This record gives sequence, structure tokens and C-alpha cells, in this order.
Amino acid sequence: MTVSVALQQPTAAAALLPSHQARLEYRSGKGWSTAGVANGFVQGNLAILPEKYAGAFHRFCQLNPKPCPIIGMSDPGNPHIPALGADLDIRTDVPRYRVWRDGEMVEEPTDLLSHWRDDLVTFVLGCSFSFEEALMADGLPIRHIEQGCRVPMYRTNIACTPSGPFAGPMVVSMRPFKPAQAIRAVQITTRFPAVHGAPVHLGHPDQIGIADINKPDYGDPVPVAADEIPVFWACGVTPQAVIAAARLPFAITHAPGLMLITDLKNKDLAVL
Amino acid sequence: MTVSVALQQPTAAAALLPSHQARLEYRSGKGWSTAGVANGFVQGNLAILPEKYAGAFHRFCQLNPKPCPIIGMSDPGNPHIPALGADLDIRTDVPRYRVWRDGEMVEEPTDLLSHWRDDLVTFVLGCSFSFEEALMADGLPIRHIEQGCRVPMYRTNIACTPSGPFAGPMVVSMRPFKPAQAIRAVQITTRFPAVHGAPVHLGHPDQIGIADINKPDYGDPVPVAADEIPVFWACGVTPQAVIAAARLPFAITHAPGLMLITDLKNKDLAVL
Repeated sequence: MTVSVALQQPTAAAALLPSHQARLEYRSGKGWSTAGVANGFVQGNLAILPEKYAGAFHRFCQLNPKPCPIIGMSDPGNPHIPALGADLDIRTDVPRYRVWRDGEMVEEPTDLLSHWRDDLVTFVLGCSFSFEEALMADGLPIRHIEQGCRVPMYRTNIACTPSGPFAGPMVVSMRPFKPAQAIRAVQITTRFPAVHGAPVHLGHPDQIGIADINKPDYGDPVPVAADEIPVFWACGVTPQAVIAAARLPFAITHAPGLMLITDLKNKDLAVL
Repeated sequence: MTVSVALQQPTAAAALLPSHQARLEYRSGKGWSTAGVANGFVQGNLAILPEKYAGAFHRFCQLNPKPCPIIGMSDPGNPHIPALGADLDIRTDVPRYRVWRDGEMVEEPTDLLSHWRDDLVTFVLGCSFSFEEALMADGLPIRHIEQGCRVPMYRTNIACTPSGPFAGPMVVSMRPFKPAQAIRAVQITTRFPAVHGAPVHLGHPDQIGIADINKPDYGDPVPVAADEIPVFWACGVTPQAVIAAARLPFAITHAPGLMLITDLKNKDLAVL
């Protein structure tokens, strides 16, 4: 009998996707970073808004698909998004949330059970983790990963197309590459429009309003060598900054670096 | 009767492709540039070599597909390449040729009727005219076309993979673009591997051995503005330079800018 149980356990575990397993651990209260967790599975940025604002935000994403690529969306009040994961519960499965009131972050809970409302609409937006996997699979080095820090991010002078209360500048992330690598990175990320797609800029940071490449507005600085080119991608911090600036009475996002892990595979986001 | 003949003539002319019509005009002895002729049709670089050297040159192209993309090839001694054009005769249909002996250009005839041999093999290689059409169709400005001059070309420190007597540096062409245009140009030209494909370099000409961007080794200089990035593509001058350097007893190429016009459509070279 003992042998039989021991044999059954691995079988049961194998039936659960690593992404699903991770969500169950976060659901049980573990509030740690999702970096490196359930490799190969798509992680998403989270925006949860009252239905009253959801239409305008949805249009904002539609109008600004590079910083705000929607990979999943819930019905109002429904905490489940079956297309993104079996048994996914948006109220509990993200390791840590940020609750915003009137544009101020007021709490960082590990679940939303006491915050949930019947009018909340969840948006899940693509994240650069997915295209970084493809870049690394191609042998391209990712500087901030090599350095063990967060990707440097910058507010630009590129205005997003506004929608209702949602407006503001595009935020970009930066990865330095040698020229031939930069060309390859354009090709690879072009295949992934659902996770920011091709870069929006390269080579002349001052042209997009970045005065000092060594002073990112978010994340950590990384060195750019003399023989390298800084390459800039639209960044999922854009919608979070826009939501904060809109000063909605109530909104929820994920805490930076603690994302929603979905059952989608990164490789399946490639359009070709 | 006269009316009937007048009605038949346009019908007969319409049946002839503009590319075929152009070849017939060149065949009749008109030795002028092919720039802007038969727009939309693929123009090719020409290399005609004795069969003795054709195998090594074919391998050279295979090993260096970015500078030497083969779009057509003849059987030894056969002046026709039906896959590239109805009624195409490689001995007469190019406006002007260059005849090389022992590495020296000795003649620039308008046909090869007195030079033809039963052991000659023709290679037709893709040319940047095709991808420039796609760039312009996308609204990207091509500096040397705006300036009415030849594209600037440079010998680089990138060594081609040698094959038999064929060896030498890659020659590149340069087009300056604003950063977002450069990214778009990478995407567009990636779709055209048969005509040099994606750029080989951008932004740091010194890294590929170009000391002065204002002093091209072939073609004409064009201005690069402070807010632009020089983007470099592998160039069809590479095989011509390599053939000259090989100092074969006998070889034929086209005269620069006076290409073979084929019945292929540029848009059909797009792989996606």
C-alpha cells in the first residue's frame, strides 16, 4: 500500500502544469518574486479596474498596443480567466498586489479576498519576460539578467494616445546589444507582438527624452559599452504609471516583479 | 483593315511584360542604366564564369548568402535561364557587360555574342533594388535616391568564407535612417533573404572597419544626420570584387548599375 501511494504522488504532480503548481503555492500565501518561476510559461502584468473605467482603459490598450498588449481579460466581477489558466483565481494567485486609491498606493496584500468587488474587470497584459526567453534561447546576452538586477526603465517623450482618464508618456525598458545582436533582437521580438513586439527606438536615447541613460526612472542602471547600442522596448510599466496618474478612486495592480503566471507558453505567442 | 491592325497592336504589347520589353530594347543595343526601368521587377547582378571555376564560385555563394544570394543559374554553355524570364538571352539582354581577363577589366561590350563560350556558367544574384522598393513602399526615405546619386559602399573587415580562388572582404551598402525607421528597415528587409536580407550592421561603422563614412570605397557619399543611424547591408559588389581579386583568366560581369532585368516580381521574393 505504501509503495502504491508513493507511485501515485509523482503521477498526480506531473498532471499539474508548473504554472498551475506555482499559482497554487502563491494562493497558499507565498509572496515571493516570480522571476525564474515556471520557466517557459507566460507571465502577465495585472490591471484590475472598476467596470466604470474598464471601457476607457480597454480602448487605451487598443490604442497603445506596444506598451499595453492584452493577453487576457475577465468578465466584470468574475475572478476567473479560463483562457489563461485552469482553476486560475485572480484574487489569490498573484504573489503580491498593489491597491490604489485616488492615485496613491495604499496597501500591498498577498490576496484580494477582502478587496474584491462585483464590478471589477481584470486585464492581463504581456510582459518582456516572454521575449527575453526568446532572446536568450537565441544566445543573446541580457545585461540586467547577467548583472542580477532589474531592467532599467525610462519615461520617454513619446505620448501614448489618450483614452478617457488614461494618458501619459510611454515607459520603455532598455537592453544594450552589440550592433549585429541588436539587429537579431529586432527580428526576434518582432515575432512577439503580444509581449511588446519590436523595439520602439535604438541608439539615440536623447531623441526620446532620455537625458541620462545611467539614471533610469524605474529599475536599475546597467552599463552600456562603447561598442554597444541601447535598444528600447515599450514597457508594461506604462499602463501602471497611467493608472496611477489617472487617480481613480480604486484600482489594483500586481507588485513589480510579482506577476501573474499563466498556463500559456511563451513560444506559443510567436506569430511566425 | 487598318482599324483592325491598330486594335491588335496594343493587345500584342500588353501581352509582353515590361521586364521582357526592356530586355528586348537592351537586346537591340540600347546601353543605358536600368535604374527605374520595369519597376516592380527583380534586377540581378551578373557573374559569368568558365565551368572550371563555377563549382567553387557556387560554393562561395552558398557559404556567403547575404552578399551573394543566388536567384538564378544557367546550365554550362546555355545562354538561357527560363526561370528568370521568357525568351531571356544572357548574351544580349543586359545593357552593358564587363569582360575580365586575369583580374583586369578589358572591355565593356553591349553584348557577348563574340565572347560566348560553351563552358560559361551564368549566376544571377539578388540586388538591393528589390528591397529598396519595399522600403519606399513602406514610406521610408532612401537617401541616395533622394540625392540622385549611387548608394555608398564600403569594404569591411568582415571576411567572407573562402572557396577555392574566391576570397575577400564583404562589401556593404549604407543607408542612413532615423532610429524608428532603422528598426522598420530591419523588419522589412528580413522578409527578403533573396536580396541580401536583414542588415549586417548598424550604428558603429568603425567596428566593421569603416574609418570614414564620408569616403565610400564604391558609389557616392551621402550625408548622415546627427539624429540618424547608418545601417549597413551586405552588397552585391562583394562577388564582383571577389571575382576580380581571384584573377581568373576569363570572367564576365554586368557594368555597375546596368543590370539584368528578370520577369520575377520583387514582391514575390518576400518570404512572409
